[in-house]
Amino acid sequence: MTTVNAYAASEASSKLEPFTYELDDLGANQVDIKVEACGICHSDISMLDNEWGMTEYPFVPGHEIVGIVESKGDAVTHLEVGQRVGVGWHSGCCMHCTQCMKGDHNLCSTAEQTIVGRHGGFADRVRVNGTWAIPIPDSVDPVSAGPLFCGGITVFNPLVQLGIKPTDRVGVIGIGGLGHMALMFLNKWGCEVTAFTSSDSKAEEARKMGAHRIVNSRDDDALEAEAGRFNLILSTVNVSLNWDAYINALAPKGKLHNVGAVLEPIPVGAFSLIMAQRSISGSPVGSAATIADMLEFSGRHQIQPIIETFPMSKVNDAIEHLKAGNARYRIVLTNN
Amino acid sequence: MTTVNAYAASEASSKLEPFTYELDDLGANQVDIKVEACGICHSDISMLDNEWGMTEYPFVPGHEIVGIVESKGDAVTHLEVGQRVGVGWHSGCCMHCTQCMKGDHNLCSTAEQTIVGRHGGFADRVRVNGTWAIPIPDSVDPVSAGPLFCGGITVFNPLVQLGIKPTDRVGVIGIGGLGHMALMFLNKWGCEVTAFTSSDSKAEEARKMGAHRIVNSRDDDALEAEAGRFNLILSTVNVSLNWDAYINALAPKGKLHNVGAVLEPIPVGAFSLIMAQRSISGSPVGSAATIADMLEFSGRHQIQPIIETFPMSKVNDAIEHLKAGNARYRIVLTNN
Repeated sequence: MTTVNAYAASEASSKLEPFTYELDDLGANQVDIKVEACGICHSDISMLDNEWGMTEYPFVPGHEIVGIVESKGDAVTHLEVGQRVGVGWHSGCCMHCTQCMKGDHNLCSTAEQTIVGRHGGFADRVRVNGTWAIPIPDSVDPVSAGPLFCGGITVFNPLVQLGIKPTDRVGVIGIGGLGHMALMFLNKWGCEVTAFTSSDSKAEEARKMGAHRIVNSRDDDALEAEAGRFNLILSTVNVSLNWDAYINALAPKGKLHNVGAVLEPIPVGAFSLIMAQRSISGSPVGSAATIADMLEFSGRHQIQPIIETFPMSKVNDAIEHLKAGNARYRIVLTNN
Repeated sequence: MTTVNAYAASEASSKLEPFTYELDDLGANQVDIKVEACGICHSDISMLDNEWGMTEYPFVPGHEIVGIVESKGDAVTHLEVGQRVGVGWHSGCCMHCTQCMKGDHNLCSTAEQTIVGRHGGFADRVRVNGTWAIPIPDSVDPVSAGPLFCGGITVFNPLVQLGIKPTDRVGVIGIGGLGHMALMFLNKWGCEVTAFTSSDSKAEEARKMGAHRIVNSRDDDALEAEAGRFNLILSTVNVSLNWDAYINALAPKGKLHNVGAVLEPIPVGAFSLIMAQRSISGSPVGSAATIADMLEFSGRHQIQPIIETFPMSKVNDAIEHLKAGNARYRIVLTNN
């Protein structure tokens, strides 16, 4: 038996409190990870508050985990005890469905999700399937690496999936936890990078993160002046926008891609898609292989999420900071 | 001066009447075509009725033209007098904008459109830019070839643009002028082909055209049973549908592609796109190069639109037949 010292909510929206649970024998394909640090993602809060109706309590959040392999099952041959790994939204998948077999493990319909029906990384250790414990190269700073595993891969994955080219013009809507990493990736990807933001205070920071251009997203005239410009507009926000203006800002063959889970339907005019061969799309986090590519790319280009750290024991303060909209730009909880 | 004997409407929705106009000297890049046959497309009717607010009268419809090059300008080196060619929605383009230079001449924002601000193919001759007079191979039946140039290319082009593979599962919504050609193309493209239709009478015909499966589009349970199946659903209709059911019928990475210009916005839930990496897209007619590929493909596979013919002089009867929804599946007007 292995003991885990975690932080858990006992009911929807409650404060997290120390919570201990026991793990059975390690499965052949599993690994136990000693958690060094864990990012806080908005979906931790959505799950904490049971917004999606699938939370089980006691609930241990945390799915941007960095740590050290502490023990491994007999069938785990690609990891070593003592190796530094990260874990994101997924902690397992079936490995034999069509999606898994085609390399799209992130689209496995029975994938295990790190904080759904099991306990996450706000803890001293966590157990996952070895497939989803992804080695962190030495070139990547371990403390700030956690947010790459959910927020980062969510905005990196579309560049791979949509075949974005270094010659493309790309706009990013929303300069927050996800958007600030998107600007960094896109700049090093070689693209012309435009940040859409309504916040003057973020404009200058967005330039530092890699934006070549800033457009005020609350200025309808400014949006209209962008007509026909973008090969890709990546929306990271979860509120309704002036969608027509953004669709109109797409070049022929341009794509409006959503990673922000806006609940209100997006009204799409077929004509505006047809005439210039445009599309509206979306994607979740990426596959383990794409995460590995992202880590290598991040290391090569010195891309690091901008983080604030809190000790794991101050998790409730950290959540309050995030809920108040004050995180610049991602919070990481650290054990030590 | 060259005289053209055409059929024109003098005002919105009026009957067509004989109408003669004169052409000036042939431009260096232009060709005159002696019209042998011309298909009738729904957009001829939309333009005739000025539904899109851009019709100029007298209005000569016709943009599914087959004929013989009668004379050519000095700079036209790729066509010969006496050669059989076809012309679709486009009759010219700038040849130097980014879209033209990348091979997407159909997306040229200043492209000349055969029946917009100029006279179309319901006539004994028509003048177009040589670029858009596309040679018809001997392997293609000339009388039925006209509908390939607008209806045909509209459903062929997405297979090229979206990179549809022979191993893909594809559904077609609407078995009419466009849809019936989509079934033929997709069958020979190697795909599993499903026809969505509400018409029992069309089900058997759809199988003959190449559908392997028929789903009743008015049966919500039947639609639900298709959940997660399709790599592509191609919508050829211009009415609102149970969009959620069709999006739900897409496999991971599946695409709902519109070539039917439905006016009411399609309400798209971001979640349903994000979770399975789906997209909603649209496209217009294809480039001249893609039309040439379609003709070669059609000749190799003996693909012919199913047509009914009327003499050009009976154009008003033909339009009535089409408006009554009786066309099976495309009408062609023939000279002589």
